Amino acid sequence: MADNLRIALAGLGTVGAGVLRLLAENGDLIAARAGRAIEVVAVSARDRGKDRGVDLSSYAWEDDMTAFAGRDDVDVVVELVGGSDGPALALARKALAGGKGLVTANKAMVAHHGLELARLAEASEAPLRYEAAVAGGIPVIKGLSEGAAANRIERIYGILNGTSNYILSKMETTGRDFGDVLSDAQALGYAEADPTFDIEGVDAGHKLAILASLAFGTQLDFAAVDASGISRIRAADIAQARALGYVIRLIGLADCDERDGTRHLFQRVAPYLVPVRHPLAAVDGPTNAVVAEGNHVGRLLFQGAGAGDGPTASAVVADLVDIARGNRMAPFSQPVDSLVASTPADPGDRRNRAYVRFTVADRAGVLAEITAAMRDAGVSIESMIQHGHPEDGGEEPVLVAIVTHEGPESGVARALELLEGSPALVDEPLVMRLVG
Amino acid sequence: MADNLRIALAGLGTVGAGVLRLLAENGDLIAARAGRAIEVVAVSARDRGKDRGVDLSSYAWEDDMTAFAGRDDVDVVVELVGGSDGPALALARKALAGGKGLVTANKAMVAHHGLELARLAEASEAPLRYEAAVAGGIPVIKGLSEGAAANRIERIYGILNGTSNYILSKMETTGRDFGDVLSDAQALGYAEADPTFDIEGVDAGHKLAILASLAFGTQLDFAAVDASGISRIRAADIAQARALGYVIRLIGLADCDERDGTRHLFQRVAPYLVPVRHPLAAVDGPTNAVVAEGNHVGRLLFQGAGAGDGPTASAVVADLVDIARGNRMAPFSQPVDSLVASTPADPGDRRNRAYVRFTVADRAGVLAEITAAMRDAGVSIESMIQHGHPEDGGEEPVLVAIVTHEGPESGVARALELLEGSPALVDEPLVMRLVG
Repeated sequence: MADNLRIALAGLGTVGAGVLRLLAENGDLIAARAGRAIEVVAVSARDRGKDRGVDLSSYAWEDDMTAFAGRDDVDVVVELVGGSDGPALALARKALAGGKGLVTANKAMVAHHGLELARLAEASEAPLRYEAAVAGGIPVIKGLSEGAAANRIERIYGILNGTSNYILSKMETTGRDFGDVLSDAQALGYAEADPTFDIEGVDAGHKLAILASLAFGTQLDFAAVDASGISRIRAADIAQARALGYVIRLIGLADCDERDGTRHLFQRVAPYLVPVRHPLAAVDGPTNAVVAEGNHVGRLLFQGAGAGDGPTASAVVADLVDIARGNRMAPFSQPVDSLVASTPADPGDRRNRAYVRFTVADRAGVLAEITAAMRDAGVSIESMIQHGHPEDGGEEPVLVAIVTHEGPESGVARALELLEGSPALVDEPLVMRLVG
Repeated sequence: MADNLRIALAGLGTVGAGVLRLLAENGDLIAARAGRAIEVVAVSARDRGKDRGVDLSSYAWEDDMTAFAGRDDVDVVVELVGGSDGPALALARKALAGGKGLVTANKAMVAHHGLELARLAEASEAPLRYEAAVAGGIPVIKGLSEGAAANRIERIYGILNGTSNYILSKMETTGRDFGDVLSDAQALGYAEADPTFDIEGVDAGHKLAILASLAFGTQLDFAAVDASGISRIRAADIAQARALGYVIRLIGLADCDERDGTRHLFQRVAPYLVPVRHPLAAVDGPTNAVVAEGNHVGRLLFQGAGAGDGPTASAVVADLVDIARGNRMAPFSQPVDSLVASTPADPGDRRNRAYVRFTVADRAGVLAEITAAMRDAGVSIESMIQHGHPEDGGEEPVLVAIVTHEGPESGVARALELLEGSPALVDEPLVMRLVG
């Protein structure tokens, strides 16, 4: 058997401790598969004394994790610290520049600095891997960049944030409102104290930007992701969707269209209405799922646990096994300098059906105002449902939900512009598209 | 860019022609990803003159495909001829022994001769790849042996035969009987003229044996697969299952238990009752899906097209891209000589719930006879439903379906032994287990 693959582990939170547990439990089997053992040489974390339930005594300790880059006894650095910049990025740069491999679960860092890190990795001929950064334990980076490598990818979309999906599933099964369910999720550890990145689509946006680059051979462009989240969804929206035969899911979706020599890259994270018979509708709780549509393979679906110490550790160690086996794919599937620049696609051109929910003051004439704006913007209404009676003079704002026929997104946008400033609307309208 | 990866293609049926079309259409993109172009050098098929809709004029032609093994201008032979033995096997042996890589979609050959071929490949240090042999376009071999490589796999199961699944889905949506739906499927090209391998579980058994070896590190043992099919399922069974909240799917399932230093390998292909909320229940038509349960990653699901020229070609070319990139994993994930022998597990020990359908003569006392046998065998009955009235003296045989409480399979087997030879039973009982 070849020499051990020697690793240094930065960050000993749940995932870091999970990696150590996994290697201890499955080490023999991994060595048989990888052709060599994976050996933890050194570790680093903020607090050396903390009890993590794993024995650290056989590993060297570094107070400063960037010291890993200088250790001759380390082949690969595993970065599980998190954060797009700061110490994680400093470590990643130093490790790769020094010719060490890097495995990371850090979606924010890869989304923001992936190209720079890939350039460093390619210059040093050092491996850079980040399977755990997207969709937790699901081998979707591998599925996309290797399994589907023979295909032009036409579209990629999926459920990329477990916290949001857990909240939406709970709202669905309990009929409760967003705020309630979020509080419960926080108490249960499914949502963080500051849940902004998860519920506002930022975390899913990081993952989507990475997937889009791999799928379309475009340069990573997280800044161009059009991200919105689930915090404005109400129990009534979910009930409404259900009545129409849909469930609501936070979907990250990307496609890429080449026109006049320019790649128009569309990247959106938003709540969508998904038909109940669609495979993504059955994805409940913290599960993630990704669909890739290739021009020869058709629709591929990858599904599994999107977070948690075991699944994330599984993805981290799968990367280490790949490195141990000598798999030397470029970090972004093809050489970083061959990735092409793209321009953000104009969403106004996209055709789909939309669900538009208005929160209206309870006064006469409001339905006429809304339908007139839709007509003037050329939007054809398929159905309109109201909760409560907006024109019977009550005091509570009521909800009016419209589903449009298929049309360009610019139509709905124009209708909402026409309604802007209307005293009939007491809140910004919520637009969700239907997955076709 | 490195030298082209030069391939020779044996077999120009739908899949072979699909590979040529795919390479023509996506060649540039594949070269960018693989770091080198994939170049078809030579082809071979039974009939040179046949119009396949692809231009063969730029490729060398060999009447005898085993001549590929002797060509200095070929790096990898792609075998798409099919058949477990015969010319396909002769070609595979000769190519690998001569140091050429082999990519094949031939599940029967891999299931029967995979270990021998892997030994040849390892001795020659030549790659051997067969992603297309299992579940068509789905990268499940890769997902299992690379994506889930960090895990002890606890169980693997899935829908591995598109023809059977198409027939079951059609029976479900139309309420029609097996024979009718099969004839239609044959007319539409979803089932072959001789459908035995598909509908009797043999094809799924080939695939299951391959997955089991990869999952558990055991030697391939197709002969030990306990395979049955769907030809005895009636419309009434499907209606019954539906009433209980289940759909019927032909499932291949394997697990492996180590006791007293021996691996007990369980491999079964059989129709199962799957809860309607289970991800496999939503898998309709010719789609395939595989679930792998790992000890850290939990449940992974891979889903996509299980057959067809485009999806199968996608898997074949993904293997070629892997080889072009220099990915050198052992053919069975770990060296073939490290795979361990197993003994077939005793199914009698397995605990589950069962659906047992009896076809009974319409005569007095039959229900008492069946329930007495169940009681004497220690099988606890959860529910019993009969179609028609077995004790009212009519002439038609009627169906009696029982669902048992959880218990060992040996119990149901014992009950059926007790009923053997009973004049009340006009046909062999049909037993289907429930997915837990």
